[in-house]
Amino acid sequence: MAAHSKHIYEKVALIGIGLIGSSISHAARRAGIVGTITGSARTPATLETAKRLKLVDAAYPTAAEAARDADLVILCVPVGACGSVAEEIAPVLKPGAVVTDVGSVKGCIVRDCGPYIPSGVHFIPGHPIAGTEHSGPESGFAELFDNRWCILTPPDGTVPSEVAKLKSFWQALGSNVEVMPADHHDLVLAITSHVPHLIAYNIVNTAAHLERVTDSEVIKFSAGGFRDFTRIAASDPTMWRDVFLNNKEAVLEMLGRFTEDLIHLQRAIRFGEGETLFKMFTDARAIRRGIIQAGQDTAAPNFGRDGKPGKG
Amino acid sequence: MAAHSKHIYEKVALIGIGLIGSSISHAARRAGIVGTITGSARTPATLETAKRLKLVDAAYPTAAEAARDADLVILCVPVGACGSVAEEIAPVLKPGAVVTDVGSVKGCIVRDCGPYIPSGVHFIPGHPIAGTEHSGPESGFAELFDNRWCILTPPDGTVPSEVAKLKSFWQALGSNVEVMPADHHDLVLAITSHVPHLIAYNIVNTAAHLERVTDSEVIKFSAGGFRDFTRIAASDPTMWRDVFLNNKEAVLEMLGRFTEDLIHLQRAIRFGEGETLFKMFTDARAIRRGIIQAGQDTAAPNFGRDGKPGKG
Repeated sequence: MAAHSKHIYEKVALIGIGLIGSSISHAARRAGIVGTITGSARTPATLETAKRLKLVDAAYPTAAEAARDADLVILCVPVGACGSVAEEIAPVLKPGAVVTDVGSVKGCIVRDCGPYIPSGVHFIPGHPIAGTEHSGPESGFAELFDNRWCILTPPDGTVPSEVAKLKSFWQALGSNVEVMPADHHDLVLAITSHVPHLIAYNIVNTAAHLERVTDSEVIKFSAGGFRDFTRIAASDPTMWRDVFLNNKEAVLEMLGRFTEDLIHLQRAIRFGEGETLFKMFTDARAIRRGIIQAGQDTAAPNFGRDGKPGKG
Repeated sequence: MAAHSKHIYEKVALIGIGLIGSSISHAARRAGIVGTITGSARTPATLETAKRLKLVDAAYPTAAEAARDADLVILCVPVGACGSVAEEIAPVLKPGAVVTDVGSVKGCIVRDCGPYIPSGVHFIPGHPIAGTEHSGPESGFAELFDNRWCILTPPDGTVPSEVAKLKSFWQALGSNVEVMPADHHDLVLAITSHVPHLIAYNIVNTAAHLERVTDSEVIKFSAGGFRDFTRIAASDPTMWRDVFLNNKEAVLEMLGRFTEDLIHLQRAIRFGEGETLFKMFTDARAIRRGIIQAGQDTAAPNFGRDGKPGKG
């Protein structure tokens, strides 16, 4: 197949075709920036769905078959599975190919995949900060990355032109791109994503195990705030287990800060310190304004769930 | 003015015209179930806006003026302000009138307002479990209560027909209605609303005071989960200060459970107990399914923020 002038990578391999893998396929096709897309999945059902939805031009049961001759290989599997995939595909990687991933932790990707990447292959870990609570190949859509950020964490010594090329790929998918060291990524994501997910999972489980409040009551009266947490707590359990097992240090550090602050608030409640509460609640509004101004959330009340558009 | 056959209450007084007060006006007008709506507000600006938006037929600077001769008086002010409003309006309440409120804590309403309610006036505290992160008279809309729950907590001895009448009023505004004791309400809401708000406020403040992660990074990379918490943390600070000062016991009890469970999770992370994490994350999905089946949230991914409809 002749290279199309708009193609950034001619042959792209998706190792794993869930929410993120399928969204990359949709967005890359929308942008017309790739030639062929191959894919592999762990289960025959996912592979069948990927074929039926035409997410891939060729579907294979193994990562090695999908990655053979690819110009860009994207690992779209839980971070705990990336190391063994890297080991499997190493022998078939084309010289000059780029290997990247979409995992929510980057230090462990460097640690687990790095040793397997052959000389002459470019290894540039990545993480699109985008997703939904739905999982699987049917949940992807082309707009998922639009105006979201994608972070690349190339190890020292990575060829700059290859980083620039992968950056242009993500920009064509709709993303803004930032480059930073893997360990800083893991610290930033611990507070903006990992700890929020952990406390969402936690309160849902606390609510489900009360003796004096029934599950039925929790469900009926969830519109006072709780329901928002359940959306986040509906995210893929395997992906999130792997995140916490592989970003332990940063998560424990941020969790320590969270708990310290919560105990401080709890004490203010116990002793009726209204001014402390009021000031903290007022301060919290500024960050929300910043997020809306930065285009990272909608200003519509209740995220627009009630069908009311935002004013700002 | 002659009573209209569809009117449940002929003259309704809104004491306070913020998000909830203005939404009651919109919803009551949509349903055609009230004759005249009077209103009072603490600030001239709110009163002016209420007049301009025709939320009220008559606007007064004091609660007593608005409540005079009303058939239904609805206190729509922060719970900490309800006692003094009850004291102020007591002398002008019409025999047979109903006094209710919309506060997120019910025990304190019974404690603070109850003693001022004159004999012959019906006192039925209430709480619509509905809202948005926006405040003020311009943020209300008629659909706010549709398919949400409203809890009524009539004290022992309340005339049943008056409870039934107020129930029909809330049903006409779009709500489902449940009746329960005030102390049970306060326990249920502690876990479904108060503690979720507290931990949302808390993580936003933790994130804002880190030394190694900038506010700019927190904002840019918020789409990984954090941004959802900032919506809840943008709610009205005065209202929430009053909630925590007035539902101390139940909030501290639920917060104790939350922290105990969080420490358990933290320990599982520290010791790499993947199975404990996986099981907890999987269990949390069931409650989400229950909430969607009960019509208390949308199934659309990301609350539909990306414009994608839910599959069911």
